[in-house]
Amino acid sequence: MTTKPARTLDPIPNPYPGRDYEIFVEAPEFTTLCPKTGQPDFGTLTFRYTPGPFIIELKSLKLYLWSFRDEGHFHEEVTNLIADDFIRHAQPKQLEVVGRYNVRGGISTTVRVQYP
Amino acid sequence: MTTKPARTLDPIPNPYPGRDYEIFVEAPEFTTLCPKTGQPDFGTLTFRYTPGPFIIELKSLKLYLWSFRDEGHFHEEVTNLIADDFIRHAQPKQLEVVGRYNVRGGISTTVRVQYP
Amino acid sequence: MTTKPARTLDPIPNPYPGRDYEIFVEAPEFTTLCPKTGQPDFGTLTFRYTPGPFIIELKSLKLYLWSFRDEGHFHEEVTNLIADDFIRHAQPKQLEVVGRYNVRGGISTTVRVQYP
Amino acid sequence: MTTKPARTLDPIPNPYPGRDYEIFVEAPEFTTLCPKTGQPDFGTLTFRYTPGPFIIELKSLKLYLWSFRDEGHFHEEVTNLIADDFIRHAQPKQLEVVGRYNVRGGISTTVRVQYP
Amino acid sequence: MTTKPARTLDPIPNPYPGRDYEIFVEAPEFTTLCPKTGQPDFGTLTFRYTPGPFIIELKSLKLYLWSFRDEGHFHEEVTNLIADDFIRHAQPKQLEVVGRYNVRGGISTTVRVQYP
Amino acid sequence: MTTKPARTLDPIPNPYPGRDYEIFVEAPEFTTLCPKTGQPDFGTLTFRYTPGPFIIELKSLKLYLWSFRDEGHFHEEVTNLIADDFIRHAQPKQLEVVGRYNVRGGISTTVRVQYP
Amino acid sequence: MTTKPARTLDPIPNPYPGRDYEIFVEAPEFTTLCPKTGQPDFGTLTFRYTPGPFIIELKSLKLYLWSFRDEGHFHEEVTNLIADDFIRHAQPKQLEVVGRYNVRGGISTTVRVQYP
Amino acid sequence: MTTKPARTLDPIPNPYPGRDYEIFVEAPEFTTLCPKTGQPDFGTLTFRYTPGPFIIELKSLKLYLWSFRDEGHFHEEVTNLIADDFIRHAQPKQLEVVGRYNVRGGISTTVRVQYP
Amino acid sequence: MTTKPARTLDPIPNPYPGRDYEIFVEAPEFTTLCPKTGQPDFGTLTFRYTPGPFIIELKSLKLYLWSFRDEGHFHEEVTNLIADDFIRHAQPKQLEVVGRYNVRGGISTTVRVQYP
Amino acid sequence: MTTKPARTLDPIPNPYPGRDYEIFVEAPEFTTLCPKTGQPDFGTLTFRYTPGPFIIELKSLKLYLWSFRDEGHFHEEVTNLIADDFIRHAQPKQLEVVGRYNVRGGISTTVRVQYP
Repeated sequence: MTTKPARTLDPIPNPYPGRDYEIFVEAPEFTTLCPKTGQPDFGTLTFRYTPGPFIIELKSLKLYLWSFRDEGHFHEEVTNLIADDFIRHAQPKQLEVVGRYNVRGGISTTVRVQYP
Repeated sequence: MTTKPARTLDPIPNPYPGRDYEIFVEAPEFTTLCPKTGQPDFGTLTFRYTPGPFIIELKSLKLYLWSFRDEGHFHEEVTNLIADDFIRHAQPKQLEVVGRYNVRGGISTTVRVQYP
Repeated sequence: MTTKPARTLDPIPNPYPGRDYEIFVEAPEFTTLCPKTGQPDFGTLTFRYTPGPFIIELKSLKLYLWSFRDEGHFHEEVTNLIADDFIRHAQPKQLEVVGRYNVRGGISTTVRVQYP
Repeated sequence: MTTKPARTLDPIPNPYPGRDYEIFVEAPEFTTLCPKTGQPDFGTLTFRYTPGPFIIELKSLKLYLWSFRDEGHFHEEVTNLIADDFIRHAQPKQLEVVGRYNVRGGISTTVRVQYP
Repeated sequence: MTTKPARTLDPIPNPYPGRDYEIFVEAPEFTTLCPKTGQPDFGTLTFRYTPGPFIIELKSLKLYLWSFRDEGHFHEEVTNLIADDFIRHAQPKQLEVVGRYNVRGGISTTVRVQYP
Repeated sequence: MTTKPARTLDPIPNPYPGRDYEIFVEAPEFTTLCPKTGQPDFGTLTFRYTPGPFIIELKSLKLYLWSFRDEGHFHEEVTNLIADDFIRHAQPKQLEVVGRYNVRGGISTTVRVQYP
Repeated sequence: MTTKPARTLDPIPNPYPGRDYEIFVEAPEFTTLCPKTGQPDFGTLTFRYTPGPFIIELKSLKLYLWSFRDEGHFHEEVTNLIADDFIRHAQPKQLEVVGRYNVRGGISTTVRVQYP
Repeated sequence: MTTKPARTLDPIPNPYPGRDYEIFVEAPEFTTLCPKTGQPDFGTLTFRYTPGPFIIELKSLKLYLWSFRDEGHFHEEVTNLIADDFIRHAQPKQLEVVGRYNVRGGISTTVRVQYP
Repeated sequence: MTTKPARTLDPIPNPYPGRDYEIFVEAPEFTTLCPKTGQPDFGTLTFRYTPGPFIIELKSLKLYLWSFRDEGHFHEEVTNLIADDFIRHAQPKQLEVVGRYNVRGGISTTVRVQYP
Repeated sequence: MTTKPARTLDPIPNPYPGRDYEIFVEAPEFTTLCPKTGQPDFGTLTFRYTPGPFIIELKSLKLYLWSFRDEGHFHEEVTNLIADDFIRHAQPKQLEVVGRYNVRGGISTTVRVQYP
């Protein structure tokens, strides 16, 4: 039951390549482990992008996010890493990835990455 | 009772053609079928436009949106398709169509199309 | 794509039959047709029950609610009908079904059925 | 009791004519009749303006809005008409009139007029 | 366009007379005239009832509420009057009528009538 | 107990004069009298400013706002008057004063003054 | 302009004396002076009552509350005093008076009086 | 500046001893230290009581809560301890003390004490 | 980094055993795996209890909830199982455990267990 | 238990130095003492920055903010001071520090510092 899913983001052809439009995806069920303590971290990831040749298939995005469940990551690092993966697979014209992470020690953190 | 309504958007003359103003329409009762699984999808469509020669009659907009009830559509495709239909019938000076679709697999999607 | 699903509510054995506890289920994507005009109606259905020998499997509940999509129903009638079906299949010790239906003609309606 | 009030917007001298400042007025109790069905429509009107020589006396605004109570008007037309009246009487440097109208047929409409 | 609608509340047979259930109806577009000043008053009326032999048809309720549009009424009086009419036509087992009226002179008023 | 406080706004030296920063102050307990009817008016005043040589001591601001309690003022006039006093005493680089006044006759008013 | 209004609560005959019903009145613009410091206090007063022979005329309630504007009162004392006055003038079958007073020293106070 | 205030709750005579009424006090600025780690904890304390011979003077309550600022306390213990102090000083007929403490380790805690 | 924590709930002596009071704990970061699909489920668990001889140490509760991260569980089963564990370790006088689980297939589920 | 923590902000290497991205940190548990009265002040501090060579380790930020607990500070001064410390330790490309302080005397204050 704990098999780690493959880390894939499946691109599918943009159904309206002739027009610049915006897709916004919100995934509130993102969890990793703290690389220092090994304890679970929780957050919400959002993607706002203007697709280029591809859009990202949502089921593959769900599985991709799931693949971080058992890994240790710092918030700043994992948000940038996910942005890199998204850029590589989707080749978007514009992209904003935002990770909002839950309160730890009375402090909450949000990381926002913009491309290009 | 399940007769499919004609896919029409009735243009009526813009009552104030001499001035650029903005009309915002919110239709929270939009439903289609998922083209992969055949199961119902739900969302809210909004239209923000600066009318040109025409405004869109609201009853025809209601019937137009209803006409998608039994069809399979991807979110990205149907939002662009509706924008195209709106542009063709209303010939607006500016238009923004936004489709906000409900959570599937823990992820929600919003598609935003702007014209020109 | 428009095949009507079977109207089933699959009971599965209550995993904790020795204790009275409460299950609350919210299904905000319920749609029927108006029996007078044939136009779509939209609403949210909630179920609050103390299970007897069975609980209701959620996927079958989703399909069950979907089966009303192309049928004409009055709000008062369909909420009671759904309560009857739920009682017959789940044999709950207690049940409350609430249907909240969207505004029509400037007026919104909520129907609440309690059992026993 | 149903005497129709005079359609007047009383200008009074701007008490601070030497400075550009902004006045925002919200009137949530606006009602007309639908010109097609004769049935009541309801909405909220807001005015945001930079006064020129005059500001509009609020009691006259209340009576002015009241004067539409028994008249048939489309949303797009009446919002522009009210903007025209406001411009003629107040001679503002800038004006934005927004009319937000209640849901009809599952769809709500907002009309926004800007001057100049 | 200003023809006053007949003051009717059409009873239709209760589709589930064998069970006590609750119907809640919210009508946020209620307006009368102040009997002292003749100026418009605005409010929201809600009905919560356990039907007896009849339920009230919603379109007739809309027209019924509309029939007060040009009449002068005090809040306390009209809420009770409407409850009386509802009781006479629907013969409910239980009824609660609540009228929430907008701010006048910095003060807002709510009237709640319960039957029996 | 009803002694009117002196109308003063005490400037104190800006503790960080070498940097432009912003101070936002919200005072929700502002009351005057209507100059027409003598009846009380209520509102919220906010100040957003980039300090120059001075910042305004908060206790003196509280007393200053209190000094209007027994005076008759129109909303447009008093908001500008307060902005003038603030500018004279604090000599800010930038200032925005907003007065939001409560509903009267179903209509609410907001006045916004910007400097320079 | 600062003439203190007479402290009166005008009873008018209950228009539906044969039925017990509830009236709820909310007055968010109540202000007194602190008896210790002489500085203004602010709060919201609500009245929930089942009328006996009388209901309270709203304009007299507004003037009555206004009459406290220049007097020093503790929260606990003035809420009870107002309840006493209301009981004496309106002779209600039941009454609840609640005063919610704004934050002072980081602490807010609410006083609730019930009768009988 | 860090002198610890005396731990006092000053009772003052109940101004309406002949009637049972309720006082609700909300103090959102409560802070202690964690007895395990020495790090600050934060929370909101509320008191709901029916006064007996005394009410508690608010300034002394503010100072009393302040006196815990440099002490180590568990949430369950300090809420009960404060209730005990309140009962001893105010001799209330009824009392409910609720402490809502901020999230620690992804978990928040509320403690509710009732008397008698 | 993925070592599974021990499933423990550490009881510590109730610091106020002589009084019945209530503790409410909210843990919004609960995640398991779906026993059918192996995919992650997310929810919020709350505990409301009147302690007997023990209260539950919060850090052990955090670790306890974490121990379900890699296990497959149905919502109804795991909520009851957790209630059983809590009862066994804390021996509370009263307990309510509520699990609110995120939307799946457009439907959300809440399970509420009460003891005794 | 009241040992004052060292005033440190630990910089750690920016894990993605090749890209400009934004980090937003919210710390709602900030408390100092009023330099005039010695009484506690409370507020929320937020940091929005584009990291240069370093990001700030969150635990050190928590301890840093804690170090102000027993010191007297004016709102305007401490917000600027904290911005200075943050700039010195983190060397950010851009920074906005906002301090929102609780109501005192019916007035709340927010201070916003931007760099460069």
